[in-house]
Amino acid sequence: MEVELITIGDEIITGHTIDTNAAYMATRLVDNGFVVRYRTSVGDNAEDMEEAFRQALKRVDIVLTTGGLGPTDDDITKRSIVKVFKRNLIFHEDVLEDIRARYARRGIEMPAINQNQALLPQGATFFPNANGSAVGICIAEQGRIFISLPGVPFEMRQILDDHVIPYLRGVGDRHALKVIKVRTTGIIESKIAEIIVGELKLEPGVRLAYLPGYRGVDLRVIASGETQDEADEKARGLVRFLEEKVGDYVYGYDEDTLDEVVGQLLKDNDRTLSVAESCTAGLLGAAITSVHGASVYFKGGVLAYANDVKIRQLGVPADIIEQHGAVSEECAIAMAAGCRERFETDYALSITGIAGPDGGTDEKPVGTVWIGLATAREQRARCLHLGGLRDAIRKRSVFGALEMLRREILDIS
Amino acid sequence: MEVELITIGDEIITGHTIDTNAAYMATRLVDNGFVVRYRTSVGDNAEDMEEAFRQALKRVDIVLTTGGLGPTDDDITKRSIVKVFKRNLIFHEDVLEDIRARYARRGIEMPAINQNQALLPQGATFFPNANGSAVGICIAEQGRIFISLPGVPFEMRQILDDHVIPYLRGVGDRHALKVIKVRTTGIIESKIAEIIVGELKLEPGVRLAYLPGYRGVDLRVIASGETQDEADEKARGLVRFLEEKVGDYVYGYDEDTLDEVVGQLLKDNDRTLSVAESCTAGLLGAAITSVHGASVYFKGGVLAYANDVKIRQLGVPADIIEQHGAVSEECAIAMAAGCRERFETDYALSITGIAGPDGGTDEKPVGTVWIGLATAREQRARCLHLGGLRDAIRKRSVFGALEMLRREILDIS
Repeated sequence: MEVELITIGDEIITGHTIDTNAAYMATRLVDNGFVVRYRTSVGDNAEDMEEAFRQALKRVDIVLTTGGLGPTDDDITKRSIVKVFKRNLIFHEDVLEDIRARYARRGIEMPAINQNQALLPQGATFFPNANGSAVGICIAEQGRIFISLPGVPFEMRQILDDHVIPYLRGVGDRHALKVIKVRTTGIIESKIAEIIVGELKLEPGVRLAYLPGYRGVDLRVIASGETQDEADEKARGLVRFLEEKVGDYVYGYDEDTLDEVVGQLLKDNDRTLSVAESCTAGLLGAAITSVHGASVYFKGGVLAYANDVKIRQLGVPADIIEQHGAVSEECAIAMAAGCRERFETDYALSITGIAGPDGGTDEKPVGTVWIGLATAREQRARCLHLGGLRDAIRKRSVFGALEMLRREILDIS
Repeated sequence: MEVELITIGDEIITGHTIDTNAAYMATRLVDNGFVVRYRTSVGDNAEDMEEAFRQALKRVDIVLTTGGLGPTDDDITKRSIVKVFKRNLIFHEDVLEDIRARYARRGIEMPAINQNQALLPQGATFFPNANGSAVGICIAEQGRIFISLPGVPFEMRQILDDHVIPYLRGVGDRHALKVIKVRTTGIIESKIAEIIVGELKLEPGVRLAYLPGYRGVDLRVIASGETQDEADEKARGLVRFLEEKVGDYVYGYDEDTLDEVVGQLLKDNDRTLSVAESCTAGLLGAAITSVHGASVYFKGGVLAYANDVKIRQLGVPADIIEQHGAVSEECAIAMAAGCRERFETDYALSITGIAGPDGGTDEKPVGTVWIGLATAREQRARCLHLGGLRDAIRKRSVFGALEMLRREILDIS
């Protein structure tokens, strides 16, 4: 069944909010075998909204909207729905009771304006919202399904996952589809293309997309088939081909992150890690601990933003900073070594660099970043020359550090 | 002039990539007085793409697309453009020379596949790409402007900012528009509505939107007018009204972030800061140093993920952890105090909490987070009870810590 996603709100159309809802909904739908054909966004504007609803109802089987279900005056989605479907809004006592109970549990009196939240289009069913006052609305008729969810991301996600996806899976025929993302790093898109292009033969129903990002290039394989087995086999066939050609650069699959891959390697090898961060000032630690269960292998670290912190908290000799500067091979090594010793871990990673926008010189331009690694056997550092702005340079530095550790643990040169 | 944004790519339509490009383009266009009327996304599929181009050319003045300009086979935007506009692709020697020179500077031989990048639709002009091989394409005819940019975000942004916006500003009549975002924290959306609703009178052409997020509720004011002065005055009028009603909760405006606001307060008061992070493990340090120039007031900190790091690197008495646990008022205070002493800063913030998904108890459920603050005068901590998943709890903890420091510096109780 084909789906159109419509995200609603001035904050979306003007770009003040990034539309993460559409991405989340699309992923969940695609992974469950639905085809997302169109995505549309309109502002908090009745005319554009009604036009978008009407057009979508004409061209797809399932219309899924988010946004504009709040209690305040700028939230007009329900009014547009009743206009397009030509119905009234009906008051639901049970919905209001739920909302009142939610406020009571938080020890807050329910603002009267929430009465609006108990009004639903005639003939609609609703999906409960475990985290807020706006329930999901569902109108199914004449083979078309129209579902409207609130725009607050964690509310939308709960309703989608707990109610909408199970409901849609029960309703209609889905495409047998397999999507596999092969994640590479250390090789550019056109180089991959050049390596594989001569021998790449795509079976019917199989597609390959290159998704370059600051972490590396993801290769996304999409295969469709009459049966799930057929789709799976087609997708796996192309993945095997890619592994043969560029396997040295593959660090993971699908939603694998380098944080998780490295964490799993540390866990599997019963090793511990600490970090010493200068220009990233916590991004590396935050990335490592974004993985649930990181306490098994991650002990902690030092944010050595100021030079005297490098000296006093990590034992970097003042001489090194004077002679070579804080952004140097010597300093990166001393930071990693000092960190490993003080935190008593098997590995220590350090990052020291120039994230910009200023602070660069001819010799050490913005984007010069040294990554240090201390192990039981040795201490070494490598220099990255990173492009992009401050934020990108900091994120790429974290990725470079994790990749250095991955290769160390796997003994890849 | 009205604009439609079309973002292209299977990765967008399937949700594997979040569509940050559309948000960026929309913001820049709106801030420059253009009206973004529609946003559409389609996959790497010629039929849907051509349909989207044709429909957009019918309903707006300016069509701006991103994506599908890469050198590989899945990039078919140019083919769809020439089909819709009924023209040929012409080879541009100068474009190819530029690309070759770029590779040469990086010491890489240009893969032959990049020859494709020098093919442009007949009659199109191009905008140079400072960071990649895909130039921006512009076709202007019969009062309609069609612009196609690459999908790699930092390439798109550079071309948009350096070339497209200046070009569009020179071309047509723009709407006089003023957008002001008033950023609040510590008060929920429906409470704000209840406070202001009795006296709120919106002038014609003025709109107010509530944008709730994990940081708080942003109030976005949009005013349009015949002249810029009129739009500005209308917007400022509503902002004054909001400040009167809920000013205690306002921490900033527009793109002000709490990181920046707190950083500026530290700078203005000539104060320094260090941090001791347990469950956030670097997120707070990373947030503070996301602001360029943070080295003036931020010295560094300790990632005290493991308890023995809290004891040894911050001097938290082992007794405290034994008696009260690591997530406790006592531990948060000891972490902040130890950090302040060791890093010799005016302020130290600490965070220790249970980010989940497990580790919670009846007494201290997931989302229990203690924030500690040490100053020259005192040491204290407050407890937050945060909702959401691991990632949201960690981010909200950072926000809570920064807000505690903001209130301390400004002496708000």
